[in-house]
Amino acid sequence: MTEAESRRRRGRRSGGEDTRAALLASAREVFAEQGYQGATVRGIAARAGVDAAMVNHWFGGKQGLFVAAINAPAEVPHIIDQILEGDPDTAGERLVRSFLTVWDAQDSAFAAVVRSASSQETAAELLRGFLTKMVFGRVVSRLTTDRPELRASLCSTQMIGLGMMRYVLRMPMIESADMETLVTAIAPNLQRYLTGDIGPISPR
Amino acid sequence: MTEAESRRRRGRRSGGEDTRAALLASAREVFAEQGYQGATVRGIAARAGVDAAMVNHWFGGKQGLFVAAINAPAEVPHIIDQILEGDPDTAGERLVRSFLTVWDAQDSAFAAVVRSASSQETAAELLRGFLTKMVFGRVVSRLTTDRPELRASLCSTQMIGLGMMRYVLRMPMIESADMETLVTAIAPNLQRYLTGDIGPISPR
Repeated sequence: MTEAESRRRRGRRSGGEDTRAALLASAREVFAEQGYQGATVRGIAARAGVDAAMVNHWFGGKQGLFVAAINAPAEVPHIIDQILEGDPDTAGERLVRSFLTVWDAQDSAFAAVVRSASSQETAAELLRGFLTKMVFGRVVSRLTTDRPELRASLCSTQMIGLGMMRYVLRMPMIESADMETLVTAIAPNLQRYLTGDIGPISPR
Repeated sequence: MTEAESRRRRGRRSGGEDTRAALLASAREVFAEQGYQGATVRGIAARAGVDAAMVNHWFGGKQGLFVAAINAPAEVPHIIDQILEGDPDTAGERLVRSFLTVWDAQDSAFAAVVRSASSQETAAELLRGFLTKMVFGRVVSRLTTDRPELRASLCSTQMIGLGMMRYVLRMPMIESADMETLVTAIAPNLQRYLTGDIGPISPR
């Protein structure tokens, strides 16, 4: 029995927080099973045993529910919108700066996301979808048609590694570095993954 | 009481495997407390309650003991030697290729190292020392005198992130990519961290 089923069988939720928690548990399962595109608000609400209108009420919609399901900061989609509005040639710089701004403010939240995704396949699937579809995939697909999935995945290697070193493994030179040092050092590498020459298409 | 102390109090080791395990437990503590440079073979052996000659017998010396203590493949120091022998301008390519060759062959070993370092401070300290002193620090210090510690740490962000995506979070585009695709895509970024322009020295 999944956690969402177990929650539902325990009976109808009384308070709003119960509804919210049931939706999150259901969302984690459905997003992991069906992907972000495949999952529907109706299906998630049904598995949680609550009305679909509660998704809008608590999370503002499917996107907000997904962000909450992986415990990412709620402002991430809005930040990606802002990154997309500026000069494509400096998107890497905006991404590095936003990443550090968001996660520096959250204390141990990055470590919690990574630990969860490193130990549970459901959480890993959510994080992969978040990184490729909602964060780097959205940015890359606006910038180039050359292997967008590979580019988004390469961006993920750099940024997850930055987060690991700053927030989880806490390497002194990365943990204590000021933002400008890291932006100047890392942004050109991220920009290359976004729009630069990443080599010929490999024969398979 | 530390694990090494606890092991010692349980009495003298009889078999060789016990000696080896006692040295590994002691090494993890002493390396984490005193760093790789500060730790001595004599001190590690004393804490394990065994003769210092056993370090050479089981691990070939301090370096081999350190590599075993973090569960890295024993051939890593030799591979770094080979990377240092070639053209400095292609060191990034050799590092990415060697990284993938070593860890692709070890199945879940990379994930085990990272999970351990993500949950225990002692293991994290060992991994930081391994990355900065034994792997990237050794390479960087041969190539440049410009902020070698920062450069080694930046290399760590990229390579730990690559390992996270290929072996732990298993993002399909990175997990299934052939070696040449990843080397071509990632090596220039690593080379920039090793020898390229990473920006001015930040005023502190």
